[in-house]
This record gives sequence, C-alpha cells and structure tokens, in this order.
Amino acid sequence: MRGQTLVRIIGIDPGLRRTGWGVIETDGVRLSYISSGLITSTSGEDLAYRLRELFEGLTSVIAVSGASEAAVEETFVNENPRSTLKLGQARGMALLAPAMKGLRVAEYTPNLIKKSVVGAGHAEKQQIQAMIGFLLPKARFESADEADALAIAICHANHRGAAALARRVLKEEAVR
Amino acid sequence: MRGQTLVRIIGIDPGLRRTGWGVIETDGVRLSYISSGLITSTSGEDLAYRLRELFEGLTSVIAVSGASEAAVEETFVNENPRSTLKLGQARGMALLAPAMKGLRVAEYTPNLIKKSVVGAGHAEKQQIQAMIGFLLPKARFESADEADALAIAICHANHRGAAALARRVLKEEAVR
Repeated sequence: MRGQTLVRIIGIDPGLRRTGWGVIETDGVRLSYISSGLITSTSGEDLAYRLRELFEGLTSVIAVSGASEAAVEETFVNENPRSTLKLGQARGMALLAPAMKGLRVAEYTPNLIKKSVVGAGHAEKQQIQAMIGFLLPKARFESADEADALAIAICHANHRGAAALARRVLKEEAVR
Repeated sequence: MRGQTLVRIIGIDPGLRRTGWGVIETDGVRLSYISSGLITSTSGEDLAYRLRELFEGLTSVIAVSGASEAAVEETFVNENPRSTLKLGQARGMALLAPAMKGLRVAEYTPNLIKKSVVGAGHAEKQQIQAMIGFLLPKARFESADEADALAIAICHANHRGAAALARRVLKEEAVR
C-alpha cells in the first residue's frame, strides 16, 4: 500500500463527555487501519474548559496522525433540544480542530455511514463493529465511539471523490 | 477609572452567520465601553471553514482586547432542532476561543442578561439598546448583535462575584 495516491483520513465522532477518533489510510481501493482512540473531558468543569480539553486533545491527535482529510458525522437531530445543543457544541469543536490544521472536513449522515460499512442504513452497533473488524483486520478499539469514528473514516474513503465533486458544484452555483 | 481592580470583560453573542462581540471595563462599580464589533463568515463555504473564520476572528479580537474574562449567552433553546444544532456549533466555537486564550468563560440565561441591563426579563431589543446607550454613553454599535454582546458583558460585570462563588460551590460538591 505505497504510492503517490495514499491518503490518511481521520474520522471523528464528537461528544462532550468523550470524542472518538479513528485514522485509516487508503490508496483509493484498499483500506488500512492506522490508529484510533478516545478523548475525554473532565465532568464538573466549565463547559468552555471541557471543550478546550477536547480541542487540544484532538488537535494533538490530528498533528501526529498525518491525516490530510477529516470526516465528521452529521449529528442525529435529537428530540431533546438540550441534548441537541450540547452535541452541537461538541460538534463545533470537532469541526474546528481539523479546519484549524488546514484539513478539509467532510460531513456524512448516519445512514450513509452505516450503508458504507454494513451495506444497510439501519445497522446495529454490533454489526458495524463486526464489519469494521472485517474491513480493517488490524483495527484495535475498545469503545463504540472509536468504532463509530472508524466507520466515519471508511465512509469518507468511499465517498471522497463524490464529495469533492459536490462541493465544486455547490461553489459554482454559489458564484452564479 | 484606574486602580488595581480594573477588569476587562468580553461579551460574545454567537451565531454562524455573524458573531457579535463587545468589550467593557469595570472597577467593580462603574462600567466603561472599550470597543465592539461583528465577525462574519462566508456563506456557501463548508461549515468547518466558516467556524474557522469566526474562531480566528474572535481569537484576534480577544488577543487585542486585553480582556481577562469572557461571557456568553446560554443559548435560547429553539423549537427547531436544526437551528438549535447550528447555534450549538457556533456556540462551541464562541466558548472555545476565549478558553484557548486562558480566559474564564461565564454563561448567563437571556432573562438574566435582560434583567441586568433593563431591570426586566422580557425586554424588547430597542429597550436593551437604549439602556446600553445610558449605561455605556461612549458605546458605538451598528448592529443588534453588538448590542447583545455588550449586554452580556454588562451582565457578567454585575454577576462575576456571584458566578465565581457558585463555581466554587459546584466544584466542592463535585469533589464530595
């Protein structure tokens, strides 16, 4: 898996308590696992301080990972507005960290992510984790958040060509 | 208005399209206007890129302002989950920028902010702007977002002692 077209992708699953991340590499066809982990914030601390903890952790991970592209899940819109707001805040942090490092950040819906990994839009957590084990045999992850982050990275590996095209079309439309 | 107890406060009114900010100075009793303004993001750009624009703008303003404390409105929880999520993302950015500069970030409800400025929790925009003109005679602002940011800063000037106390109590409770 060497060549000029190797790309490293970081997938991010944002959350205020814990933010999962997963880094994979692709040559456009094959995928390989690089690393994954979890960043946590101190409960009981001020919200701003907790966001800073996550942002600093994520910024360090991005710097070390060598990733040049990032992908974040388009958050599930919760019924509970307080949860939605909380998730939005963590998501702002998760979008900002790679953007500040100069990475393009793509967004995908939960359904598309599941489809990319399992082949169906309504997969269970266990199915996703089993498929990640199959697609990335070297993957070692201990939490569902890491697995979700790897699933997001896999989704981006499958759609990055299409995403770049859509972005170009949108921009051309905006210019008109 | 000189002395050892002079504090500069930046109030921030977050929004994805435009984020208002206002800096005031207080000696614990009197207030004075320092500066205020608006940071905008480029519509049509990726969400992550727009958050980066706002974050960079706000970070520069904080660095120049000499503020040592920040205050952000506790967002109104909207009926529309998409709007709530969008606001949450901008809010994550607005909390993160001062936290990354080492500032304490306080949060206040819209009602408390209105009460601090107008004396009632259900004031109109015009009433708030008129009272800011009265409390900060030197204030020059062209937008409602700047006025709101100044109102947030005034609220923090009035409650910073109580806020510090509440934080201490909360932490002591968390330790138990």
